[in-house]
Amino acid sequence: MELLQTMLTEAGFECRRADRNGVPNLLARWGVKGHERTFGFNGHTDVVPVGDPADWTADPFGAELREGQVWGRGATDMKSAVAAFVAAALDRVRSAPPNGAILIALTGDEEGPSVDGTRALLDAMDAEDERMAVCLVGEPTCPDTFGEMMKIGRRGSVTCQLSVRGVQGHVAYPHRATNPMPAMARLMDRLASHRLDEGTDHFEPSTLAITTIDTGNTATNVIPAETRGTVNVRFNDLHTGRSLIDWVTAEAAAVDAEFGTRTEVTSHVSGESFVTPPGPLSELVANAVEAVAGVRPVMSTGGGTSDARFVKDHCPVVEFGLVGRTMHQVDERVPVDDVHRLKAVYARILDDWFA
Amino acid sequence: MELLQTMLTEAGFECRRADRNGVPNLLARWGVKGHERTFGFNGHTDVVPVGDPADWTADPFGAELREGQVWGRGATDMKSAVAAFVAAALDRVRSAPPNGAILIALTGDEEGPSVDGTRALLDAMDAEDERMAVCLVGEPTCPDTFGEMMKIGRRGSVTCQLSVRGVQGHVAYPHRATNPMPAMARLMDRLASHRLDEGTDHFEPSTLAITTIDTGNTATNVIPAETRGTVNVRFNDLHTGRSLIDWVTAEAAAVDAEFGTRTEVTSHVSGESFVTPPGPLSELVANAVEAVAGVRPVMSTGGGTSDARFVKDHCPVVEFGLVGRTMHQVDERVPVDDVHRLKAVYARILDDWFA
Repeated sequence: MELLQTMLTEAGFECRRADRNGVPNLLARWGVKGHERTFGFNGHTDVVPVGDPADWTADPFGAELREGQVWGRGATDMKSAVAAFVAAALDRVRSAPPNGAILIALTGDEEGPSVDGTRALLDAMDAEDERMAVCLVGEPTCPDTFGEMMKIGRRGSVTCQLSVRGVQGHVAYPHRATNPMPAMARLMDRLASHRLDEGTDHFEPSTLAITTIDTGNTATNVIPAETRGTVNVRFNDLHTGRSLIDWVTAEAAAVDAEFGTRTEVTSHVSGESFVTPPGPLSELVANAVEAVAGVRPVMSTGGGTSDARFVKDHCPVVEFGLVGRTMHQVDERVPVDDVHRLKAVYARILDDWFA
Repeated sequence: MELLQTMLTEAGFECRRADRNGVPNLLARWGVKGHERTFGFNGHTDVVPVGDPADWTADPFGAELREGQVWGRGATDMKSAVAAFVAAALDRVRSAPPNGAILIALTGDEEGPSVDGTRALLDAMDAEDERMAVCLVGEPTCPDTFGEMMKIGRRGSVTCQLSVRGVQGHVAYPHRATNPMPAMARLMDRLASHRLDEGTDHFEPSTLAITTIDTGNTATNVIPAETRGTVNVRFNDLHTGRSLIDWVTAEAAAVDAEFGTRTEVTSHVSGESFVTPPGPLSELVANAVEAVAGVRPVMSTGGGTSDARFVKDHCPVVEFGLVGRTMHQVDERVPVDDVHRLKAVYARILDDWFA
């Protein structure tokens, strides 16, 4: 981040750090603050853990060049994309200073809690009247082939933890106990087998995953007093975190009424679903990708969350980046050619934006 | 056990130890070996752990007499019953030597694995052509009031452990994973909601309890590869351990076919169901109880397992003993009067048997 700050400053970007609670965040703007034609780039410099370095065939932080690829943690997610859009921006402001502004927002916490990362950058921008007209997040978006997919939104994510309580007892005398286990099984079966929707114009159907059920009862002759389970829902624009929590809570109440149990639901909404409907921004990006890669990217809303979930409250946002196949894995790597092509896409986007 | 051996030997019982793998077992016979009118008593001298002695209001091994009760671990389950039937037998052989035989079988492992306890005693009897015509086990059988219940059989018990395997993955990409959790929920719901039977002449309906489900997945964005669960079935004479294992295995296979999972079933039959249908032996015991306690005992097959499950392969067996309300609990205790009444019941049984 210090390297980027130095390079951007030397090229005429106005840089300021927006660190919060120990998270490094960098805001760099070229051009007039608040310009109506401000193009934003968002990215992160932090990475997920490497696991056991002995499992790697390369130094995870060596950036080794081998077989035409860059090897290392962050090669695809997403140091290369940061390098690509910074390089494209530097080229542009040096060669043909745009009629408008470029704002680059970089955080050191996207893979972690994401509380003091892009949120802090957006808070700092609000406080200082910094604006982006549109924003591109450089997350890896292509499943297998460079250029095949971009993201115009993301599903939301909500996690519900269910604690089902009954009355402990001996299995030989079930009438003296209230077993929470059948209630948990019924509740989980109902939640998992319910079809939430059929998908929408821009979204796949919402999905629910039971991620765990845990009881910890080691005695086979004892009916346990309590069991706990967790479900995670990835949802489209037909739902909100609140509507899904209400649904889970109502199903739990119905099961409680049947089984005489008491179920407590605690929940956490990681992000609401959002979409930037196909329009000028997505066309701009898709055209640039097609010009460079020769394929027109599918406009997807699938996959996991990203910081676009925060940016979407500020301005229209889309995502385009590298092939993510090795992200978060051992031997994360990216073809060097793809990084050059990504830089070319970002450069083309800036050219078209400022044309 | 040494005390009992000394007392029984002095009274003319032929005693031998049938210890196995460190478990003390005592076989004591008065009268001719193999006599067709041999009445058997079976009991155990071991007890369950006391837990924290500080929770007790009496020394758990002090046999304190207070408020007309004997306090201590084993007071009801079942040192008092052993004392009562040994005392009744000693009285009888001293005062009116019976035309027949009395065989007393005592083990030091009924509460534990029960592998080298009553089984070892029965093996030793087989090896030496020792026989009982009938047998009474002195387990506590009365829920609340002395004399109200005897046992003429027991339900069987089988435990099945289910391991459901799928394919791990990210919750955002459920189509690339096979979540074992919905399969587990469906399987458990089916097992728990299935009505096994409506009960039989001598048995309550069979019951199934889910005792635990455990997954141990702490990541809310990960679909786990495997989950494990346990069910325990207490079953009547319409089932066998084998028939229930086959049923669980078939249900698991059906769910696997629906969900694409692979479920492994491992099982353990603790005991098959058995009944000594109402007849001469149960009438003998019920009449004696009624004569002493003034109430005719209900003939039950409910509750947990006991060593009667082993004895039933040797001869008709019933159970009658004390009120079991405090068994296995802190401050286990029994009214001294009940122990005297129990001895009187056992004495009456011997009188009627040899009449």
